Amino acid sequence: MEFPLQILPIGGLGKIGMNCMLVGARDRWIMVDCGVQFPPVTLIGAERILPDTATIARWRDKIEAIVITHGHEDHIGALPWVLPVLDPAVPIYASRFTTRLIEHRLSEHGLWAPSRMRLHMPGERFDAGPFEVEPIRVTHSLPDCSALALRSEYGTILHTGDWKIDAEPLDGEHFDHAAFERLGDEGVQLLLSDSTNILSPGRTRSESDVARGLPRWVDGWAGRVIVTQFASNLHRMQAIAGIARDSGRQLVFCGRSLWRYYDAAVASGRPPFPAGSVIDIEDAKGLDPSRVLIITTGSQGERRAALARAAEGDHRHLVVGTGDRVIHSARVIPGNEADVYDMFNQLSLRGADLVAGRHTDVHASGHACQDELADMFRLVRPAHFVPIHGEYTFLRGHAELAKRCDVPATTVLQNGERFGVRAGTTRGSVADTARLDIELLDTLYNDGPVTADADDLHLKERRRIAWNGLVLVDVTLQRDPEGRLNGDARVQTRAMWDDGGTLPGALAVVAERAVHACPPRTPIKEVEEAVAASVRRAVRKATDKRPDVIVVLHQGRAH
Amino acid sequence: MEFPLQILPIGGLGKIGMNCMLVGARDRWIMVDCGVQFPPVTLIGAERILPDTATIARWRDKIEAIVITHGHEDHIGALPWVLPVLDPAVPIYASRFTTRLIEHRLSEHGLWAPSRMRLHMPGERFDAGPFEVEPIRVTHSLPDCSALALRSEYGTILHTGDWKIDAEPLDGEHFDHAAFERLGDEGVQLLLSDSTNILSPGRTRSESDVARGLPRWVDGWAGRVIVTQFASNLHRMQAIAGIARDSGRQLVFCGRSLWRYYDAAVASGRPPFPAGSVIDIEDAKGLDPSRVLIITTGSQGERRAALARAAEGDHRHLVVGTGDRVIHSARVIPGNEADVYDMFNQLSLRGADLVAGRHTDVHASGHACQDELADMFRLVRPAHFVPIHGEYTFLRGHAELAKRCDVPATTVLQNGERFGVRAGTTRGSVADTARLDIELLDTLYNDGPVTADADDLHLKERRRIAWNGLVLVDVTLQRDPEGRLNGDARVQTRAMWDDGGTLPGALAVVAERAVHACPPRTPIKEVEEAVAASVRRAVRKATDKRPDVIVVLHQGRAH
Repeated sequence: MEFPLQILPIGGLGKIGMNCMLVGARDRWIMVDCGVQFPPVTLIGAERILPDTATIARWRDKIEAIVITHGHEDHIGALPWVLPVLDPAVPIYASRFTTRLIEHRLSEHGLWAPSRMRLHMPGERFDAGPFEVEPIRVTHSLPDCSALALRSEYGTILHTGDWKIDAEPLDGEHFDHAAFERLGDEGVQLLLSDSTNILSPGRTRSESDVARGLPRWVDGWAGRVIVTQFASNLHRMQAIAGIARDSGRQLVFCGRSLWRYYDAAVASGRPPFPAGSVIDIEDAKGLDPSRVLIITTGSQGERRAALARAAEGDHRHLVVGTGDRVIHSARVIPGNEADVYDMFNQLSLRGADLVAGRHTDVHASGHACQDELADMFRLVRPAHFVPIHGEYTFLRGHAELAKRCDVPATTVLQNGERFGVRAGTTRGSVADTARLDIELLDTLYNDGPVTADADDLHLKERRRIAWNGLVLVDVTLQRDPEGRLNGDARVQTRAMWDDGGTLPGALAVVAERAVHACPPRTPIKEVEEAVAASVRRAVRKATDKRPDVIVVLHQGRAH
Repeated sequence: MEFPLQILPIGGLGKIGMNCMLVGARDRWIMVDCGVQFPPVTLIGAERILPDTATIARWRDKIEAIVITHGHEDHIGALPWVLPVLDPAVPIYASRFTTRLIEHRLSEHGLWAPSRMRLHMPGERFDAGPFEVEPIRVTHSLPDCSALALRSEYGTILHTGDWKIDAEPLDGEHFDHAAFERLGDEGVQLLLSDSTNILSPGRTRSESDVARGLPRWVDGWAGRVIVTQFASNLHRMQAIAGIARDSGRQLVFCGRSLWRYYDAAVASGRPPFPAGSVIDIEDAKGLDPSRVLIITTGSQGERRAALARAAEGDHRHLVVGTGDRVIHSARVIPGNEADVYDMFNQLSLRGADLVAGRHTDVHASGHACQDELADMFRLVRPAHFVPIHGEYTFLRGHAELAKRCDVPATTVLQNGERFGVRAGTTRGSVADTARLDIELLDTLYNDGPVTADADDLHLKERRRIAWNGLVLVDVTLQRDPEGRLNGDARVQTRAMWDDGGTLPGALAVVAERAVHACPPRTPIKEVEEAVAASVRRAVRKATDKRPDVIVVLHQGRAH
């Protein structure tokens, strides 16, 4: 085989999320990460988007291990759907903290099997499939994040996972520059690096900057302070807990997922602050507002999350009003802006003071900006580069940056493109690599108990009916003494304007006329079609819409 | 009357768009602007949101004129729905360019009546209702934008419209500092000022900055250049036309609304570039790509606009590929991010080079940032201030800025709150103003020929059915010789997962069992309910969904 080192991205390339990649050497493979993608707000009918399990199933016999870089949902969230198509003996390697998050997810689906879990630790090498894997500590926005150096006799692939270079990490766990540099000295055939923040120049803020910036919004505020953040960001939690302590405020959690991540940190032996120093919102009644600091979920205005419900006056325990200050310690994920602004407006209308926006310094991204991405190239000096984790335009942008950083060969891939690196190359040229094959990936959608593709979930039909509506025409057919057809029609409409209730009656008349216009011996199927066509025309004329028209015909009893 | 100067905002306060306000003196009123709001991408079932015409109709007898600040859709777009509820004799005052845009909109609806139009010109005062109106030139992002000084014997209201301070406007029409300052010297009782960009510190870029910045993305590019911009931005068009001329490229329009705005500029006597120097994309075949510069619509990824269609490979004349450079010379309106990113990804996948994002300097906002907003306070020195045009949080932010700028009294209003200013006050205090009344405004939605409220358009039902689906159960009832009920059921589903087509059959069995379980003399209505309940339960169990279940029962013929 000319190209023994290979990758097959299943997800994560071209759209943000659903990170999942097969990495192989001489046709022995491992899976790196196994995440979901959260659908855009415009998609109706699915809660999550999943990697194509049918394709993964075809690779089943070749996949010898799963290795997880960190515990975000877009890296572990698809495990409940992917594990069932893999050999149950395949081990899952993850850090201590990530393992606790995986335990939670898999337990929900009755799939938790501690025996298949293997702990990995930064710097401690282990064998997985054809690779000797070395997790290398990176900083990101939750604990225990690793890049993966995948060494094999044919060369080394470095998969960065998600990362930034936080010079002052709150948990004291530093980005391991030295390990990357050592790896660079050793020689890396293929670098795969996170493209999420390629559009942002400069460097990301440190979590310590946020920890220093937040107090100015808390100190001197006489009422309650409510901070909303991503639940997984234990570092942010730690910073806020410190501010609560320093300002003499009781720390309060509002939102179940905060507890989930906090508990995972406790269970992995590194709580971000002492147990007992936080209480739940249910137990926070009657406290002096000036002595309260609440952390809440719902930073994206998600309708069912705590802060959005509080904004709608619909949360049992979190009632927001005058005197409250709400700090939005998160970015707005693109696409969520309208929901987030609606939430902000509602909170303001209730009298809350709002601290939000780019210029308030209350958030730090977890992803490397351009200067850090360039640092990675300089540290690792890869022979080849494939940008991962990002919109397709981000991957293209990251490729441009690689060029400016003198990376000798870069290829922008899409999900499903299998890509190989020639054995033993240490300085890259495009001739040393090849696009080998394309797996035509299906997109899977999950909606509660149902997982299916777009057709089977009728995703297009949902939008079409929501925009155009549905008309049900129920006709009882009769023949008059001359054998001519008569119909008695009842019409119901759904999901459409019905002219204050008068449209159905008007359409019933249209349907009855259509029946009456049919010659005596018209086959029933043709009567049905004639009714549907007439009703469709009449709706079109009245509303300019093309609803689904369902005609149900029955032979009536003779009068 | 204690508070002779009054305002009643119908739209524009609390959400961006639908700008429309009634302004009165001693109960004689005028309407300032009459715009639509574009619905969020998550709203299904309406193309535009309109001011409450029922409320406006109740004010009909008191409204003596309409005065338009400028020609953007969120300032003129609701005229076709509002004019029919006003006295046909009410004149509409607008600038020359705005008048041409109004002509286009009203003609579409058969409502164009040139006789009711009145031209206004900066600095030329006219009487409208109880006010002597002076339009004051402001800079924004299309031609002929005015603030309105509304003088009356009870004092002066200044309505800024939409504005920025562009120090180097491309059309040479400058923001009229002197007029605002003069007005300030004279005394302004109430200032109403645009809050759109309150979250942005500093000052907006000038259109001239963009005109200077764009060429570096065009010069030296060997292939076609495609620039997407807001169609109404004639200044941007002018800048791009200049770049086309200087770089020896043929200017090409792709998208009908570009022609609409260009034609309006020509008709109002001030074309942004000579007629004849632009051709339509239909006529641009066969040109040397290095000699072409295309302006196209679709900067927001709108599915039916030219660039989004080109990205999908679905535009007859604009075929994007390798060698093309696409410049996104616009902001992304919050909420549209997902659609815009999808379009960018598709364009990149087709091989286009993409220039987009905050750091490319190819766009300038049309709205004043914080320092400019502060300038307005310093120029006008109003006794009272009410922030307008923005999300509710923006209005709150603008009020904060007013406080820092020593504006003596500020009130944040919502749509529907009638607000009055005491006669003769020149230095404001809260005691000089009053919230007088609240009009409970309905929100109107337009969808093609239909305009109705959320209930009548069944907007909630649309979402519910799109998420949960619909089941139609058609049962023919029979009685067996013992008088017991039997049913023959056929089931159809819509907008839901149907288990590869097997769910309807399973539900038919459920329905038939439910019929069979009914005692012999069960009233038909109760049979229907029993069937619906059983089917609902079965669907819930299989899919965790609660679809609409419609049961149609018929008495069958005896066998």
